[in-house]
Amino acid sequence: MKTLAYFNGTIGELEEVQIPFNDRSHWFGDGVYDATCAGNHVPFALEDHIDRFFRSAELIDIELTMTKQEMNALLRDLTKRVESPNTQVYWQATRGTAWRNHVYPENVPSNFWVMIRPYPLVDLDHRETAITVDDTRFLHCNVKTLNLLPNVLASEKAKRAGCHEAIFHRGEWVTECSHSNVHILKDGALQTHPLDNMILPGIARKHLLSLASPLGIPVIEKPFTVSEMMSADEVVVSSSSTFGIGLSKIDNQPVGGKAPELLKKLQDAAITEFNEYTSRG
Amino acid sequence: MKTLAYFNGTIGELEEVQIPFNDRSHWFGDGVYDATCAGNHVPFALEDHIDRFFRSAELIDIELTMTKQEMNALLRDLTKRVESPNTQVYWQATRGTAWRNHVYPENVPSNFWVMIRPYPLVDLDHRETAITVDDTRFLHCNVKTLNLLPNVLASEKAKRAGCHEAIFHRGEWVTECSHSNVHILKDGALQTHPLDNMILPGIARKHLLSLASPLGIPVIEKPFTVSEMMSADEVVVSSSSTFGIGLSKIDNQPVGGKAPELLKKLQDAAITEFNEYTSRG
Repeated sequence: MKTLAYFNGTIGELEEVQIPFNDRSHWFGDGVYDATCAGNHVPFALEDHIDRFFRSAELIDIELTMTKQEMNALLRDLTKRVESPNTQVYWQATRGTAWRNHVYPENVPSNFWVMIRPYPLVDLDHRETAITVDDTRFLHCNVKTLNLLPNVLASEKAKRAGCHEAIFHRGEWVTECSHSNVHILKDGALQTHPLDNMILPGIARKHLLSLASPLGIPVIEKPFTVSEMMSADEVVVSSSSTFGIGLSKIDNQPVGGKAPELLKKLQDAAITEFNEYTSRG
Repeated sequence: MKTLAYFNGTIGELEEVQIPFNDRSHWFGDGVYDATCAGNHVPFALEDHIDRFFRSAELIDIELTMTKQEMNALLRDLTKRVESPNTQVYWQATRGTAWRNHVYPENVPSNFWVMIRPYPLVDLDHRETAITVDDTRFLHCNVKTLNLLPNVLASEKAKRAGCHEAIFHRGEWVTECSHSNVHILKDGALQTHPLDNMILPGIARKHLLSLASPLGIPVIEKPFTVSEMMSADEVVVSSSSTFGIGLSKIDNQPVGGKAPELLKKLQDAAITEFNEYTSRG
């Protein structure tokens, strides 16, 4: 298959599969998701992503219809069915199919969706650009939900400014980006927002932090301000498709570029980890 | 028909119609909606609801595929096709069908959905109960979007407490409910949160305010606190399906009940307006 769409066992190309009118994603964005990149037809760090997916579901009371092991096996199997070895593997659960009503439907199983499509790995040798945007999102940003409208609006704003990402801040404090976490390198250390309800616990973030220590890079989990970010040695955005990419401009001002070797060490470690994991099959 | 589902021209019962896998409601809740109640097969205050719907769409850059007049005619026509004269008439627009990407798809029309189902008018002679819930929602509550997960969670919490509604507050300040606006009657006046990004501009709210003045009830558009609400003469929740219903308990404490005649005057005026509008056909 070129692409793969899965809904409760029905499989087809993305343009073929249909969803019942009463799925609760339609009225409330009532669901949670997760996603990773595959290399060699193997979804990277799948256990981490499934763990986070189960936590997201639990935080909004969505009962999943399979175990972690079953989900792992299903996602690995479906990823193999798509022709391209490099894909994005995305899955979500919605709170079932039932007539629209804010309260949870009773005795209705959750729906399980998968989407797999070709997705080339990002080239880490270039740098990207970003804008800053007031963080007007809800206070549940630790849950990977389908309520992503402020992220959509911020991403579009970045695109219209000719940039790749939008960096959210609450007052002076940087939180994360519209679809990445953001970190700074300063005086040889990696600083990032601590895990709380203001940011998503990124899997790429988690891996970057765990790769930093063996490289002799101290990790500081402490919020930083917009002005600290603007004067940092490097500003790094990370997501499951970008690992950790350096920024060259924010709001049209030059940023980073003062610790390229340190950034390269982290990127090389992340790519090595990805290649080793996916080559194990 | 018993119920009616409509998607871009396809019509069926709610259980029949299917939605393409790539509709953007599925990944982002990327859409806006509106809803009203019909009596005598006529959707009440339809012009107000369509005006608000167009404002919601404009606020998040969704381009609609029909004029207000065309939408009005379509919704009136579809409402007549459902057997029950008393229905909920719900419609929404999503930002089209396209591969998942945060930024807006280019040259892709928005999708238009309608859902109509039997919906008895609420009996205003009883009183309801509510809980209070910390308002953790985003700062776009003036837009009627499909990002309603905090509203779903709050509604379920109310249900589990044996109550009908959840009243949101930011700190001490009451904003609105999970699917209604909330007002107080105090010393003969009707007080309600002003229109800003913290609350939805309710159509029932708008009608209540405009009905109050001719009844000699002054209107105060000013936020009130939780404690002001608890000691008010009446606490009133309004939505397109409830008009304005009195509360008897909040967080298990007795509230209101000190100005029942004033409340009844408002309710009678709202019901009269509904009956006059819908009987005109």
